[in-house]
Amino acid sequence: MRHAIQDQYPDEYSHCYGCGRLNETGMQIKSYWDGAEAVCTYTPRADQIGVPGFVYGGLIASLIDCHCIGTAFSAWEAEKGALDAERRFVTAALHVDYLRPTPLGVPLELRAHATEIGARKVIVAATLSAGGAVCARGEVVAVRIPATMASS
Amino acid sequence: MRHAIQDQYPDEYSHCYGCGRLNETGMQIKSYWDGAEAVCTYTPRADQIGVPGFVYGGLIASLIDCHCIGTAFSAWEAEKGALDAERRFVTAALHVDYLRPTPLGVPLELRAHATEIGARKVIVAATLSAGGAVCARGEVVAVRIPATMASS
Repeated sequence: MRHAIQDQYPDEYSHCYGCGRLNETGMQIKSYWDGAEAVCTYTPRADQIGVPGFVYGGLIASLIDCHCIGTAFSAWEAEKGALDAERRFVTAALHVDYLRPTPLGVPLELRAHATEIGARKVIVAATLSAGGAVCARGEVVAVRIPATMASS
Repeated sequence: MRHAIQDQYPDEYSHCYGCGRLNETGMQIKSYWDGAEAVCTYTPRADQIGVPGFVYGGLIASLIDCHCIGTAFSAWEAEKGALDAERRFVTAALHVDYLRPTPLGVPLELRAHATEIGARKVIVAATLSAGGAVCARGEVVAVRIPATMASS
């Protein structure tokens, strides 16, 4: 039984509205690492629309954000070994290209992989698909959590 | 008394989770045009965090998204006259640079202006500030709503 990447974050970094297991009102995004890429499935609610019938772009950005941050965590550990401190990445930059309207009412599948892995920075590329068609592409620059955000 | 830009969208395009006045469970983002730029103020809820004490990046992306789409609407009308059809822009691309952690518990102020206005496309640049400090910068490529998303 695999554990979601986000469920491996320390408790103090598990309150994220997008993906924190300890945020009861949040989206609870879960990503799974297969050794080369991370996969996430998410089915939006009926109210999470931009215009009727189509998923809200801000939700798509949120899914890409949290999924890519999780991907950065696992890709870094796969290449460099277990993180022993600052066990969380955060977003320095987010880019989303909305290629076509994303239909509501079907599960969305996100896939992401690292394109660059540095000591403190990982660049991640993602796709978001509905029914087999890629609806959005994203890129996230993920950095190790800075001291200004870390819990004391 | 000024009306919010989003409250000028036609009813059929006013269901957006981010800014639709007819989406009762949504965020109800409101932007106001001053003739040159648009301004929005939004105070996140306590659960809309990335890590404790700081606003969720996906929420910041959502605020920039809807605020810039509203800005595109007003900037286009200010330059070219009232839109008589396709009275809504949607997001073709979104970019956010997170410059510093955005503190929770204070109102966030967004300001945005058009940097390019075409017949069907507007490019919008935005800042998001907390307590006078710019925490994020964004850019949105806004396009007139395509036929594939339009209500019949």
